[in-house]
Amino acid sequence: MTRWTRKDLLGLEELSREELLLILDQAKAFQQVSLRSIKKVPALRGKTVALCFLEPSTRTRTSFELAAKRLSADILQIQPSSSSLVKGETVLDTARAIEAMQVEIVVIRHSTSGVPAMVARAIRSSVINAGDGSHEHPTQGLVDLFTILEKKGRIEGLNVLIVGDILHSRVARSNLWGLTRLGAKVTVCGPPTLIPTGIESFGAKVSYRLEEPLGAADVLIALRLQMERQQEKYIPSSREYTRLYGIDREKLKGAKPDLILMHPGPVNRGVELSPEVADGPQSVILEQVTNGIAVRMAVLYLVAGAHSGSADSPVDAAVHPEPFESPQGKRSLT
Amino acid sequence: MTRWTRKDLLGLEELSREELLLILDQAKAFQQVSLRSIKKVPALRGKTVALCFLEPSTRTRTSFELAAKRLSADILQIQPSSSSLVKGETVLDTARAIEAMQVEIVVIRHSTSGVPAMVARAIRSSVINAGDGSHEHPTQGLVDLFTILEKKGRIEGLNVLIVGDILHSRVARSNLWGLTRLGAKVTVCGPPTLIPTGIESFGAKVSYRLEEPLGAADVLIALRLQMERQQEKYIPSSREYTRLYGIDREKLKGAKPDLILMHPGPVNRGVELSPEVADGPQSVILEQVTNGIAVRMAVLYLVAGAHSGSADSPVDAAVHPEPFESPQGKRSLT
Amino acid sequence: MTRWTRKDLLGLEELSREELLLILDQAKAFQQVSLRSIKKVPALRGKTVALCFLEPSTRTRTSFELAAKRLSADILQIQPSSSSLVKGETVLDTARAIEAMQVEIVVIRHSTSGVPAMVARAIRSSVINAGDGSHEHPTQGLVDLFTILEKKGRIEGLNVLIVGDILHSRVARSNLWGLTRLGAKVTVCGPPTLIPTGIESFGAKVSYRLEEPLGAADVLIALRLQMERQQEKYIPSSREYTRLYGIDREKLKGAKPDLILMHPGPVNRGVELSPEVADGPQSVILEQVTNGIAVRMAVLYLVAGAHSGSADSPVDAAVHPEPFESPQGKRSLT
Repeated sequence: MTRWTRKDLLGLEELSREELLLILDQAKAFQQVSLRSIKKVPALRGKTVALCFLEPSTRTRTSFELAAKRLSADILQIQPSSSSLVKGETVLDTARAIEAMQVEIVVIRHSTSGVPAMVARAIRSSVINAGDGSHEHPTQGLVDLFTILEKKGRIEGLNVLIVGDILHSRVARSNLWGLTRLGAKVTVCGPPTLIPTGIESFGAKVSYRLEEPLGAADVLIALRLQMERQQEKYIPSSREYTRLYGIDREKLKGAKPDLILMHPGPVNRGVELSPEVADGPQSVILEQVTNGIAVRMAVLYLVAGAHSGSADSPVDAAVHPEPFESPQGKRSLT
Repeated sequence: MTRWTRKDLLGLEELSREELLLILDQAKAFQQVSLRSIKKVPALRGKTVALCFLEPSTRTRTSFELAAKRLSADILQIQPSSSSLVKGETVLDTARAIEAMQVEIVVIRHSTSGVPAMVARAIRSSVINAGDGSHEHPTQGLVDLFTILEKKGRIEGLNVLIVGDILHSRVARSNLWGLTRLGAKVTVCGPPTLIPTGIESFGAKVSYRLEEPLGAADVLIALRLQMERQQEKYIPSSREYTRLYGIDREKLKGAKPDLILMHPGPVNRGVELSPEVADGPQSVILEQVTNGIAVRMAVLYLVAGAHSGSADSPVDAAVHPEPFESPQGKRSLT
Repeated sequence: MTRWTRKDLLGLEELSREELLLILDQAKAFQQVSLRSIKKVPALRGKTVALCFLEPSTRTRTSFELAAKRLSADILQIQPSSSSLVKGETVLDTARAIEAMQVEIVVIRHSTSGVPAMVARAIRSSVINAGDGSHEHPTQGLVDLFTILEKKGRIEGLNVLIVGDILHSRVARSNLWGLTRLGAKVTVCGPPTLIPTGIESFGAKVSYRLEEPLGAADVLIALRLQMERQQEKYIPSSREYTRLYGIDREKLKGAKPDLILMHPGPVNRGVELSPEVADGPQSVILEQVTNGIAVRMAVLYLVAGAHSGSADSPVDAAVHPEPFESPQGKRSLT
């Protein structure tokens, strides 16, 4: 069995098929924990996880926070408003100070691509990329892989259609790397202005019209239209976008009946998805949210283990069923 | 003995006398916990409490936070600035995402009346109203009942005078429901513009002058004048308000010597209460703050038990005296 | 052996040599804890530490937060934006409400000198000054003492040079009190406008030029130039300041080879210190950050013990090696 050896999780591009499957296996084990009355295991007790979200975020930050708490880690919130950044400190100086405080894991979101990788090179602490610019959002990509595997039983050979602003989407990039590595056939679809040129060389088919690829799709991932950015440069209007690429009941008539519908959230209702489709039977959006915690528990647990060199049989040890009562359980983990 | 069966606590209006007494009993048990050196019990270990304060608040939020921590729950802070609400997400979408993260209890404060009830209908998680518009602030109402019971030994038959902006006060509404249900005689007093018409039909007497009802009162609850709202529409000036309705040593000369003086805080010193009265021997304002934690522990504990169906003998089980040492104690709770 | 008897830590000025050494001893014991895989001890389990940072701060707040978490305390963050202060509540009212919630320790940073002392007089909870105006920053002073002791093996007889804005620096004041009390010879150096008149009476020598005292120094503490304040009134320009008082490789040629270089952080790179010197072999800046946690654990632990009257043999008891497994260990602490 593969062992996890990476200090950091910076993107899915660099992960092997075996590493992806290792994370998904570990997440499956943690999913069981969340069904218990006490949703907590002592796996990261006494370890500290710093959440450095230097771009606003609720869902991803909250998901990491709950994941870390359910692993019994201590959490440090570093937010831009309260940050020394207002005193002119650089990101690297902040990271080195966090490392000096013996924080084991630093989760970073930053509006500039490459910042998590730069920090990872500079410090010994593990770094997890929680979204950097338009580069990658690897844990969202893993959540989507996990959810597809749960609902479809496999990833290999599935037709996955990603619809929306491919150009700016770090989610789309992580999805593309993860899905193609595990053997899915990916088609990206959106207005020509929002599809990066040359994306075919990464293994994706391109379609500027929704109808045809939708008919063949097993999985549809609708991306969020970033209403807060000025996207007028790219699309005539969000109304026009919705007419062509918004998913509603009418358009779904041409799709397979067992198509599942995903979205990284939060949904602009009536833009990417009509409300009845977002809440409909094919939507697995809330399951993505639920799975997010198990997947992030897995990632936190694996990088912590690689760091300390002690994660021998990670899947079993981490989810010991009586976390707080049994000294043996704890000793074997730490 | 009554058992608690409600998933949510949305207001005192809908609670029976037995339900009110059950909460007060449970709070009494938790009050003992706060006298210990280790003020913590494992009752909600592994459960998550989300604090969604979408209106600024320190006291109530802090009180809920400490209550949840002393029950060993994990806490998730959802605040407006960091919230997806800036991305245009609706309150219901946020609530459904929180539910999907398997958060057991959601505490909500919102400036619009009815939002907690709407959320409670939409999700399986328990919802506690921490103040909604001018509708209700049920835990503050319970704190006041608890404090009166502590100081007076009973509620039935007491004369309680509520002074101030009755029209906009959710505290006044929760006080009115709770006090009348437990048999107190309530008089509301304030300028005519700040007394809602028809309030007599809810069991309160109305007085526009302070002197007469003050002479008969056993308990006086002074409400906060919301200086931050433009109340010029309702009162000529805060100076004029204070002259007529502000409580000072002079006015208290006409009151019973064992009158107790309450205020939900924070006090505008020199407006609702003169400083010497706020800090004087009849004031129980700081006891209200202390009791707030025991009362909120009780509410969190009861709704969590109703949710999981395991709160058999809540009063005894929750306050087991050696919470962290005794495995038996923990097993019986979870 | 001295016992710690103070409820509060407000400044180093009032501490005896024995008290300073007691804190440093306790910090040494906690430093060992941070080398373990599980960096947590149960010493403050069930106690609450409120962090009231009414001035922006990341490093000191984070350091106190980690220190409190590694002692297993519960933490309450009170920040200006979320604070009742916006409702016009006074600092004292906030402090009394925090006391009423049975919070054992209140850590306060405030832009006005003397606020922590005022609060300490008003409430029974322990108060720790985390920096008040230009008065004192006692835990930073202790961190510097601890770091010097670690690197040099002693403090008595050392030549310590403090460079920069002595006039506004609470760090300089705490350093001065602590260092002279433990027998170091302190020289302060900076532009005449930034040296308070009469500072010689507190035991410091004064130099307006860097070269001479630098040659004799064993320890150099560079202070942060508060770029955010309008210091144009005091210095012609930060460029001119750097030319005269900024430390770079060139100026260090005149210093002892075993000089150590300290800075309370965050560094304005290229102003107080050149980048190659800040990251160079003589810099112990990141060790100051690491030591900050052990020192603050010691302070939190000692004031908590003085408060409860139970800290009999603090050094040993607090760092019991198997904190979560051993009931005896815990009983002896609480």
